[in-house]
Amino acid sequence: MMKKWEENIRRVVPYTPGEQPNESGMIKLNTNENPYPPSPDVRRALEEMEEESFRLYPDPSASVLVDALAEYYHRPREQFFTGVGSDDVLAMAFQTFFNSDKPILFPDITYSFYPVWAELFGIPYEQPALDEEFRIVKKDYERENGGIIFPNPNAPTGLYMKLAEVEEIVRKNQDVIVIVDEAYVDFAGPSAMELVDRYENLLVVQTFSKSRSMAGMRIGFAVGNPVLIKYLNDVKYSFNSYTMSQAALSLGAAAMKDQAYFQKNIRKLVATRERTKKELKALGFRFPDSGANFIFASHESCSARELFEALRERKIYVRYFDAPRLRDYLRITIGTDEEMDALLAFLQEYIRKERIRKL
Amino acid sequence: MMKKWEENIRRVVPYTPGEQPNESGMIKLNTNENPYPPSPDVRRALEEMEEESFRLYPDPSASVLVDALAEYYHRPREQFFTGVGSDDVLAMAFQTFFNSDKPILFPDITYSFYPVWAELFGIPYEQPALDEEFRIVKKDYERENGGIIFPNPNAPTGLYMKLAEVEEIVRKNQDVIVIVDEAYVDFAGPSAMELVDRYENLLVVQTFSKSRSMAGMRIGFAVGNPVLIKYLNDVKYSFNSYTMSQAALSLGAAAMKDQAYFQKNIRKLVATRERTKKELKALGFRFPDSGANFIFASHESCSARELFEALRERKIYVRYFDAPRLRDYLRITIGTDEEMDALLAFLQEYIRKERIRKL
Repeated sequence: MMKKWEENIRRVVPYTPGEQPNESGMIKLNTNENPYPPSPDVRRALEEMEEESFRLYPDPSASVLVDALAEYYHRPREQFFTGVGSDDVLAMAFQTFFNSDKPILFPDITYSFYPVWAELFGIPYEQPALDEEFRIVKKDYERENGGIIFPNPNAPTGLYMKLAEVEEIVRKNQDVIVIVDEAYVDFAGPSAMELVDRYENLLVVQTFSKSRSMAGMRIGFAVGNPVLIKYLNDVKYSFNSYTMSQAALSLGAAAMKDQAYFQKNIRKLVATRERTKKELKALGFRFPDSGANFIFASHESCSARELFEALRERKIYVRYFDAPRLRDYLRITIGTDEEMDALLAFLQEYIRKERIRKL
Repeated sequence: MMKKWEENIRRVVPYTPGEQPNESGMIKLNTNENPYPPSPDVRRALEEMEEESFRLYPDPSASVLVDALAEYYHRPREQFFTGVGSDDVLAMAFQTFFNSDKPILFPDITYSFYPVWAELFGIPYEQPALDEEFRIVKKDYERENGGIIFPNPNAPTGLYMKLAEVEEIVRKNQDVIVIVDEAYVDFAGPSAMELVDRYENLLVVQTFSKSRSMAGMRIGFAVGNPVLIKYLNDVKYSFNSYTMSQAALSLGAAAMKDQAYFQKNIRKLVATRERTKKELKALGFRFPDSGANFIFASHESCSARELFEALRERKIYVRYFDAPRLRDYLRITIGTDEEMDALLAFLQEYIRKERIRKL
């Protein structure tokens, strides 16, 4: 029987965070982590960190990290806001900017936390459907709304929308805030960041978790005109002043500074992705043409769920979404060349056996 | 003129986080930081940290830290919840447990974020007044309510309420959740943690920022019966799965394990506090008998605001609250013996001059 004190407890749909298996011999392609370590500068920063200073609160304005971002992107520091991963930045942006009675808009197939935050903060929302090929239908974003958010590239499809199209959505919605969630943009093409100077209503959000190989340190940031950034900081300071640890600030700054390492890392990953696409196609898979560090693939004759289980059996972890329109697909993170070779070898053998079985 | 896109932006009272000055020769007694560095084990943990693993998401269940807490406190691990500082833990607890139509109760003079979170989450609240001597009036917490929260010791008074009295409040409110915020308890007396096995409705919150010298790493935790902890985790996972970085988890675990260092640190600080009390009294200050790592002091003849400014001029930073009932007081963090000596020498001279001026 429910106790009296349980009556006013918030009930949520129990959510299991993406599996974080840790087994020897496993190949982890399930949470879009970067297969390469962060820049060697991060090691150096770790060694230089002084534990004596841990007794003090961190700098609430995150100066050292904001400075590194401003320098890297050649933008004024007033255009940057930082947070504990892009989830923290996005949740803060929902709270700050989406306070209209009109529904905010985001695609039906997209990052799974958008509806969660909307529910949490009591924000009305509508989810226009992606088209048959998983593309965002731009005209669906021309109706009255309380704000817009979409990832570019989109998740879990990987599809990148050209900057001119992103701009069209931003331009046609200048009365509301448009958030472009660019968690995967470094693997894809130009960032909408360059539109920030022209559109006051645009907020671009990025993360250190993918292209910067720093998922473990929880660092995200937003770029927007200084007025938007000030609103974000006001809300943040008003209810939690110190969120980013000293370690996140100094290691994040170190990761941001090593431009050469970063670009080499991206090139390597994109080369592996493009090769993997060719080989998957040859094996009978189809998928939206991904600009991200993952491929969202479906096979012409194999069940995605069965394949997911078989891969798991072999300790190759990928992501499966048991949801309408998604359940024929697997989301496969791009790992090292060796990891992709092991995956492809397994798939080849699996598909061969399936063909024989079906004869 | 306000732009259309600005209309639905959340307005908050712009809040300036506690000053974090960083000047040579300064004495920083304004944010209740510990004057001593964390355990040397934290240094070792820093050196052993492997930056290669930063590419991976942190363990969302914070196992390494939860295990260290469970071991230190000799309690089952299912009784612990961790977060990014106790502010994060407390905000999460407000969201999870305070969903009644009846007002939650907390003192009129208390931690300043309670009303902020209540407003943010739309929780009705009432603030029974402390008595003349800044004590919590227990019978004010016997009316119908939607939950209760208070710090013990209270902030910014430093007054510690005996465990039997805390228990009385918990016992008389078994239909709602009672949160005891013990940020400063290690400097004061027994924790309400030991009541958790007897009262299912009790949640105890603590932090690494004060007694553990780890404000810079942002680590807080809650102790409660496993059902409460599960509700907290459900809410947390449902909207942000990865909040604590790998660094916070491993450095926090290291800090928790070194019991001998911790106890020596506490003893030293308490000795300095008790000596400071005597000397402040001799100088004509009065204050509630603090059990925390700060003293909330008022002088019989000097203006607190003027003294605050004079100290600041000399680069001695303390905290001043310009609010009813508080504006005659300064909150002075306990620093090292040398820092307190410098403070006391300055006060002695200041008061001597004031006396002469007033003759």
